[in-house]
Amino acid sequence: MTTLRLPGLVDVHVHTRDPGQTHKETWASATAAALAGGFTTVLAMPNTRPAVTDATTLATALEAARTGARCDYALYLGGTATNGTAAAALAPRTAGMKLYLNHTFGDLRLPDLDTWWAHLAAWPAAPPLVVHAEGPALAAVLLMAEWLDRPIHICHVSRADEIRLIARARHRGIAVTCEVAPHHLFLDETALARLGRRGEVRPVLADPSDRAALWEHLDVIDCFATDHAPHTSAEKDGDDPPPGFPGLETALPLLLTAVHDGSLTLEGLVGRLSTNPRRIFGLPKSDAVVEVDPDEEWTIAAADLQTACDWTPFEGRVVRGRVHRVEVRGTTVYADGKVLAMTGSGNHLREDHT
Amino acid sequence: MTTLRLPGLVDVHVHTRDPGQTHKETWASATAAALAGGFTTVLAMPNTRPAVTDATTLATALEAARTGARCDYALYLGGTATNGTAAAALAPRTAGMKLYLNHTFGDLRLPDLDTWWAHLAAWPAAPPLVVHAEGPALAAVLLMAEWLDRPIHICHVSRADEIRLIARARHRGIAVTCEVAPHHLFLDETALARLGRRGEVRPVLADPSDRAALWEHLDVIDCFATDHAPHTSAEKDGDDPPPGFPGLETALPLLLTAVHDGSLTLEGLVGRLSTNPRRIFGLPKSDAVVEVDPDEEWTIAAADLQTACDWTPFEGRVVRGRVHRVEVRGTTVYADGKVLAMTGSGNHLREDHT
Repeated sequence: MTTLRLPGLVDVHVHTRDPGQTHKETWASATAAALAGGFTTVLAMPNTRPAVTDATTLATALEAARTGARCDYALYLGGTATNGTAAAALAPRTAGMKLYLNHTFGDLRLPDLDTWWAHLAAWPAAPPLVVHAEGPALAAVLLMAEWLDRPIHICHVSRADEIRLIARARHRGIAVTCEVAPHHLFLDETALARLGRRGEVRPVLADPSDRAALWEHLDVIDCFATDHAPHTSAEKDGDDPPPGFPGLETALPLLLTAVHDGSLTLEGLVGRLSTNPRRIFGLPKSDAVVEVDPDEEWTIAAADLQTACDWTPFEGRVVRGRVHRVEVRGTTVYADGKVLAMTGSGNHLREDHT
Repeated sequence: MTTLRLPGLVDVHVHTRDPGQTHKETWASATAAALAGGFTTVLAMPNTRPAVTDATTLATALEAARTGARCDYALYLGGTATNGTAAAALAPRTAGMKLYLNHTFGDLRLPDLDTWWAHLAAWPAAPPLVVHAEGPALAAVLLMAEWLDRPIHICHVSRADEIRLIARARHRGIAVTCEVAPHHLFLDETALARLGRRGEVRPVLADPSDRAALWEHLDVIDCFATDHAPHTSAEKDGDDPPPGFPGLETALPLLLTAVHDGSLTLEGLVGRLSTNPRRIFGLPKSDAVVEVDPDEEWTIAAADLQTACDWTPFEGRVVRGRVHRVEVRGTTVYADGKVLAMTGSGNHLREDHT
């Protein structure tokens, strides 16, 4: 067995469903999945119930994280029509600000361009302001970032026209960074025949040419982020399937397979799963280590995963590269299928309110 | 009776429905309505049947205009997913290029940001490239206009956030011009209780605060344009009412009423209905004269209008200011309710293909 030692990975885009929808996932189960997937830090999205939009809801969600998390974490605040200025005052306590500029799961919506502008104007340069912005919304938010001369991070870029526009923005000197989700790199709409309703995700699985364009523009992609968005198989198979895939435990094996296939370098993998996320999000250094066997071939099966989510869009997929051991602060927190980290052992990586 | 002599007005946004849907309107009836409304030049939109998207369909539509038009005219070409480069070669024969960046009446849609970019890059600086671009699409197209350093004209601006963004774009030095439709200045969503299904229009009738914002930003508005978009009352009262209002014969009286009320200057009216449209669209000088009685009070009634459209959203509205006579090239073309211009008497204002 070959053992490759990687730094602890960072997933900047995770939905824990906790508080409020803990039948889908909890901090305990999400962070167990994180460690099993090689992620020792997760940044959690604010579309929980209640949504994290102010000091009170942030405190509630942080308490759930503090007691449940098995790995390090920080939490995003969500932008609303009215919280632009008040939210900015909370910035040091957060992973960043998340703006939902297209319709997706949850209630966080911004009604007009004035509210987008207000958030972009009010939020400080750091921590990042991150946006779900597809198509015209992406171009719109790049315009505002340029006019306001502020950095912006684009979540889960999925289409050819979007990655090209981001390339142009970067060429123009706009301080834009972006992430791409593994499911947009390894799946496209041709998978919908197999996935059926479970294939609902936002952004949707795109055209094969979109998927190809992401690979062609790897140099523009700063981070790989899972957009881990668990819903139960019963919910996904129902009449109105909520959008989202689990992803924490499949990301690294899929990307290691790409390294094996020669479509990604190991350096490029580590940069986009650890170095760049840490730099962009201003996260502290970490001594965390992830030991993987890069050659081990195995078959993805939901039954083997730590997430509370009972299915995966990658069921049955043969991948190459497996996590064997994860160490954080000198302690083994995961070893060969067993999560050893206790709930509550994760550190909050932003300012606590005292 | 007071007689005020205005220059011939220009409506840069008219749907003639000819060819293809002549039960709604023809070149003959649309231009009769134009003259009765004081407009001696109309620029016609390309979402006819067939849509005007290439040399062949342009020739077909120009033939309908040549035989039917009672006033001067030019025709827009419509952008499609594939005609970016070929369309640009036709530019001198057109009023301009129209891009539909939001969903509206007809088939002309552009699927992604790459096709928007291709059109903005290919179309020359003149004649204008005009866009239906609401909300995020507006911001997106302003971004592309700025990056490509090209002028752009925004159709029927209707909301507060949009007019504010255009104001910012202009302040930044972007070569953006815009038009506002009278129905967005004189109606808002509170009219929907009265109008019912007939109130469907794109952009939709907006919030009263949006309407107020348009008046507050008069300095940003270059043109008033009717977006005359006739559908029969039977169609409007049906299950799936098509969006659009007639507007050619009500625009000037409504705006003269605003002058009478002090919310607009006469100079501001003439600038936005004649001087600015002529300058922006590079139209030839005209000796056309419109004689109005600015004090005459009358009540708008669809039965009295020249348009083939048998209803108006302004039915029963009392206005102040009436067109009595219109003269073009020394000939009286309209006098007190009678259209005297023959079909085919209008001039094409762009290059003919020979």
